[in-house]
Order: sequence, then C-alpha cells, then structure tokens
Amino acid sequence: MKRLKKQMDFILEIDKEKNIKRQTLITDASRQETDAEHAWHLAVMCALLSEYSNEKIDVAHTMLMVLMHDLVEIDAGDTYAYDEEANKSKEERELKAADRIYNLLPPDQAKMARELWDEFEAMETPESKFANTLDKIQPAILNDAAGGVSWTSHTVYIDQILKRDARVHEGSEVLWEYTKNILDENVKNGNIKTR
Amino acid sequence: MKRLKKQMDFILEIDKEKNIKRQTLITDASRQETDAEHAWHLAVMCALLSEYSNEKIDVAHTMLMVLMHDLVEIDAGDTYAYDEEANKSKEERELKAADRIYNLLPPDQAKMARELWDEFEAMETPESKFANTLDKIQPAILNDAAGGVSWTSHTVYIDQILKRDARVHEGSEVLWEYTKNILDENVKNGNIKTR
Repeated sequence: MKRLKKQMDFILEIDKEKNIKRQTLITDASRQETDAEHAWHLAVMCALLSEYSNEKIDVAHTMLMVLMHDLVEIDAGDTYAYDEEANKSKEERELKAADRIYNLLPPDQAKMARELWDEFEAMETPESKFANTLDKIQPAILNDAAGGVSWTSHTVYIDQILKRDARVHEGSEVLWEYTKNILDENVKNGNIKTR
Repeated sequence: MKRLKKQMDFILEIDKEKNIKRQTLITDASRQETDAEHAWHLAVMCALLSEYSNEKIDVAHTMLMVLMHDLVEIDAGDTYAYDEEANKSKEERELKAADRIYNLLPPDQAKMARELWDEFEAMETPESKFANTLDKIQPAILNDAAGGVSWTSHTVYIDQILKRDARVHEGSEVLWEYTKNILDENVKNGNIKTR
C-alpha cells in the first residue's frame, strides 16, 4: 500500500523534531525544550485558550497548524529569535526544507501540509494570527516560570522582544496583555535588559 | 482575570509532561521519548491517518484526546506496559492524578478534560478506539525504526504484545495489519521473543 508507506515514512521522518532543541528551557530549567514538545504545548494551549482569539477561529485547523509549524527545522534547524545573522538565511533554508519534508507525504497531504505552513508564515488569516500569537507567548511564559535563565544567558533586551512581538496583539489582545505584564515584571527584576 | 490565571496555571503545570520518560526510544535510539513528544506524534498521526479509522471519526476531538491522554502521568508516572506489578496500582494512581490536575482548570474545561480522558480510557467511541490504536502502534513503529532496542532490553515476548494489542484492530484494521507485519518481522529477526 504505497500511500500508507509514504505516510509512515513521513511520520518516522518527523520523529527528528524530538532532537531539535529550542532556546527555551522547560519550566524546571533542567534542559532545553524540544521542537516536538513546544508544538505539543502550543496545540493544547490552542484548544484551551481559543476563546481569547480576537477573531473567531477554526480551532482544529489552528491546532494542526501549530503541531506542524516547525517541521522545516528538521533540515533548517532552530534559528534563535535574536540571532540576526542566522535569521538572514532562515527563509532560504526553510523553503528548501519544506520542499523535501512535505513531499515525503502523498501529493494531497503534501499540498495540505505545505499550505498550512505557508498560511502560518503569512500571518494573514485569523487562525494564523492566533497560532503565531501562541508561538510567541509560550516562550515568554516558560522563560518566566524557569526564572528567566533563557533571557539572562543570552542578554536579551526588551526592545528586541517588543519588536519581535509587535504583532502578537493581532491574534489576541487578552493574551498579549497577559504576556506584556510578564515581560514588564522581568524588566523590573532585571532578567530582561533595557538600553 | 481569574479564569485566564487558572488556565495558565494548568498550562504551566502540564509542562511537566516533558519530564516524563517513556520506555520507547526516539528513532535514532539516542534517548527515551518524553510523554509530551509522544502526544505530539500521536496528534500528527491522527490528522494524517484518520482515513484508516474503521469508523468515521471527529478528527479534532480525537487529536485533543491524544494530546491530553497522558496528563495523569504527571503524578502517576509512566507505567511500563509489561510491568505487571506496577499495572495493578495504575488505575488508583491515575484517578487521583486526574482529580488534582484537571481541576486546576476552570470548571467547564476541567469537566471537558476529564470527560475526554474517561472517553479515552473506556475505549467505546470510534474516536477513543482510533486514539487507542494510535497509542499502541506508535511505540511499535518507533521501536522497529530504533532497531528494536526497547524490546530486546526488556526481553518482551510476542504473546505479551499481542495480548496488549488485542483491541488495536477495533480502531483500524489497516493500521493493525501494518503493525502486525512489523511485529512479525521483529519476531523473525529475534528482537521480540517467543516462548
């Protein structure tokens, strides 16, 4: 059964997301979070927090979007948000990865997966805006819970964060306000620097 | 905002699923898979393989079920499938965990989460049958890809696996047949023992 074989090849390939480490630590600060764990966390958050989306969203569609949004990092790696040099080549690396990885699937599902990622990246639909909001606020919430190590060890400045988070409010004003309070607290206690 | 606070408390609490190690290794056999990674993998599999469910299922409902099905292990721990002694106390430990963990959520979501877990455990609805099928076949697929280490290191017998997998076909005859072939191969090559 060629179709199932292709699906299973993809399912085994994406196991590699468990080996991609993010700059965010898990809440007990014992180690870095993996991409797969991050995606899992976002999907549960999506189900529980969808009531705070500015616009009505298709929750199932958004869950699948966050579950699969980082698959390109299997080839392209996790690009740290505040690494300006690495971010210059990010798009090219990720587009190449998308071509390889999604095409392991049968054509109809390859198309679906690619469209879902394109939608996530474009940040135009209500679903994509909410998914991007979750993707941005989750590290802040974890970093705060882990004592701010991820901010202090990289010396992150509040202007960098606010620039990166400039569109978070488009997905959810409520969740942005919640996150903004967390950021403010961490500026106050010195975990996040000002300049 | 008390409701959001409760939701965020739950979201931080479930971060602990990233610290619960399963007996299954990731495909490169470098380390054990975590509960959070397992749940992520199942949710993606659910979206991509739902066409093989014996009965028509609500995919979004099933995805959320697999994403949250192991949360009780935050308190109760992962009980290895073939540890007969530990399995005797499993139900009691997990029920206690469910009472504590789900009730961190606002009442309506606590009820939803608990009902979802009860549904998963009861294995009566088409969604639950398919979720349980994914939960059982994923370790077999990973173990096979990782060279069978998880079977050989625990000396697992085929009769134990077949007993545990007795109802896998109820969720999907196609996926059970696929998995049965993998098990047969691993009996042939000696990774799974016979007696």
